[in-house]
Amino acid sequence: MSVSTITWENGRLEIIDQTLLPTTYERIALTDLEQVWEAIKSLRVRGAPAIGICAAFGVLVGVKERQPSNMAELTDAVRSATEYLATSRPTAVNLFWALNRMRAVSDSLPENMEVTDAVRRLEQEATAILEEDKTLCRAIGKHGAALIKPGDGVLTHCNAGGLATGDYGTALAVMFSAHASGTNFAAYADETRPLLQGARLTAWELANAGIDVTVICDSMAAQVMREGKIQLVVVGADRIAANGDTANKIGTYSLAIAARHHQVPFYVVAPTSTIDLALDEGGAIPIEERAPEEVAEPEGHRLAPFGTEAWNPAFDVTPAELVTALVTERGVFHGPTYDLRKALAD
Amino acid sequence: MSVSTITWENGRLEIIDQTLLPTTYERIALTDLEQVWEAIKSLRVRGAPAIGICAAFGVLVGVKERQPSNMAELTDAVRSATEYLATSRPTAVNLFWALNRMRAVSDSLPENMEVTDAVRRLEQEATAILEEDKTLCRAIGKHGAALIKPGDGVLTHCNAGGLATGDYGTALAVMFSAHASGTNFAAYADETRPLLQGARLTAWELANAGIDVTVICDSMAAQVMREGKIQLVVVGADRIAANGDTANKIGTYSLAIAARHHQVPFYVVAPTSTIDLALDEGGAIPIEERAPEEVAEPEGHRLAPFGTEAWNPAFDVTPAELVTALVTERGVFHGPTYDLRKALAD
Repeated sequence: MSVSTITWENGRLEIIDQTLLPTTYERIALTDLEQVWEAIKSLRVRGAPAIGICAAFGVLVGVKERQPSNMAELTDAVRSATEYLATSRPTAVNLFWALNRMRAVSDSLPENMEVTDAVRRLEQEATAILEEDKTLCRAIGKHGAALIKPGDGVLTHCNAGGLATGDYGTALAVMFSAHASGTNFAAYADETRPLLQGARLTAWELANAGIDVTVICDSMAAQVMREGKIQLVVVGADRIAANGDTANKIGTYSLAIAARHHQVPFYVVAPTSTIDLALDEGGAIPIEERAPEEVAEPEGHRLAPFGTEAWNPAFDVTPAELVTALVTERGVFHGPTYDLRKALAD
Repeated sequence: MSVSTITWENGRLEIIDQTLLPTTYERIALTDLEQVWEAIKSLRVRGAPAIGICAAFGVLVGVKERQPSNMAELTDAVRSATEYLATSRPTAVNLFWALNRMRAVSDSLPENMEVTDAVRRLEQEATAILEEDKTLCRAIGKHGAALIKPGDGVLTHCNAGGLATGDYGTALAVMFSAHASGTNFAAYADETRPLLQGARLTAWELANAGIDVTVICDSMAAQVMREGKIQLVVVGADRIAANGDTANKIGTYSLAIAARHHQVPFYVVAPTSTIDLALDEGGAIPIEERAPEEVAEPEGHRLAPFGTEAWNPAFDVTPAELVTALVTERGVFHGPTYDLRKALAD
């Protein structure tokens, strides 16, 4: 069972409010454009693919709100909706990509089209963005599922799950797919400080799918490996260089080192769209530093002394030599060295 | 400047209430036996040496409360105080050790002694326990200080500081001693999930001493090393086997692996009393598992889904081959292999 992160039924946009997880599961309807904007801004919906999907349907919410009576009004409604939604999270690449797709469809419509037909065409595009993501995640899951053997322990970090995508995730797709095909395994979720996406979201998703999951602190991963409980690690990726160096949530690199020390295979699971062939290697990936308060004041509760410095890099870069293989919708690429320009050209 | 974790002045016992740190610094007086018991029980004072010191003075608090008019009453007051305080944290070895020292002094006093003289003798013993600890920690600090070079970055985990001892700590004694001798360096404190002693206590102690300190999440340590910011790691120890295998706060092992990967020296700093020569190697050290709520509900705030499992080992064992050297009050023992039975017999 996968989650339905974003649904569009009978012209109604609903999302899981991820800020309430894991203690409360609540689907909320986004009935006007401002609600869509706010949901993206305040992380009720998060994860690059999920943001893009939500924004695409959000354009339709904006169109319906305006009730255009002719094509000029419709085109104008699409234009203003896309421009407005683009301001919700200005660094989210998938957001612009999805909004641009909606805008391009709108711009391509004939001026003499019926408005209801035009709206249907826009609905088809948003639905396609969602369905393409689902297909992609399922292909990734299928390729990765074979890596999990019955009885394995599988450790993951952060949330590369259905909540970040249409419904199935990337790293978690591997687990969902193995589970769906009847493989029994034990999942371990790093809590993933500072924002705890592992404890809050991954644990929830896996438990929701009926997968046996244990939450651990990030610092416990090496000890769990030492006890022989982990047979493989699967993590997502934010950006992958042409040589396989992988930027992902802070803590991934530490986990990769521990995995290597214990001879545990370490898999990066991501769509090929995550691979940035313009980058020779990971050193060129800029690391976002976030507010120190996320470290010093977890969940708004002050821990470190006032005035003490805290350091909060959001990502780290795991060198390709620590990556056993890269699992994508196009198959599994094995290390220890990667030439992804060549691999993707084949 | 070191902290005065526990003071005894003019018959008045005061401690720093560590449950209020780091946001509030408050010294509280423990004026009756029940307050002493409660302070130990609820971690207002914590750390094995500090608990022992507090309990030793606590016996005196109990004696004063009873106002014994003869030696029989005094001996009885000591007996009941030690028995009562022993129930505060029944697994704390230092607690019993300190209480036994007080009891032994009491038992050795002549029956015809003046009560005031007897009380003075008990005060001398408790003061000796405190002073011996201070001397020990300063000797450790002196031996370790030379390991820090000007400009170094020094990473530590958990709190092996003055708050856990009389006033100077073990791993932190190395930093305090280097700082006192004018060496400039940058300290990094792992926050140390699940109980966050690094963020709460170590950061406070170092800042209080005027040492530049940055708090990081445990999962960031490897990345800080990769950026070349760390030249050495110093950690305390809960128990060390004869071969150098070291049990310490969970996350120490992960840190040791990361240090080895980056060729950063990793030092275990502890008094020789921490070395358990009865243990051949670390595999024999039992690992306490604590309540899963410490992981799933940090600071009382629910994070992981209800019903999800969490695993919470309090310690891990770092194999001796990852320990560059062991810093004690008797000097620095270098690895990669250790024969501590022989070393301590010399």
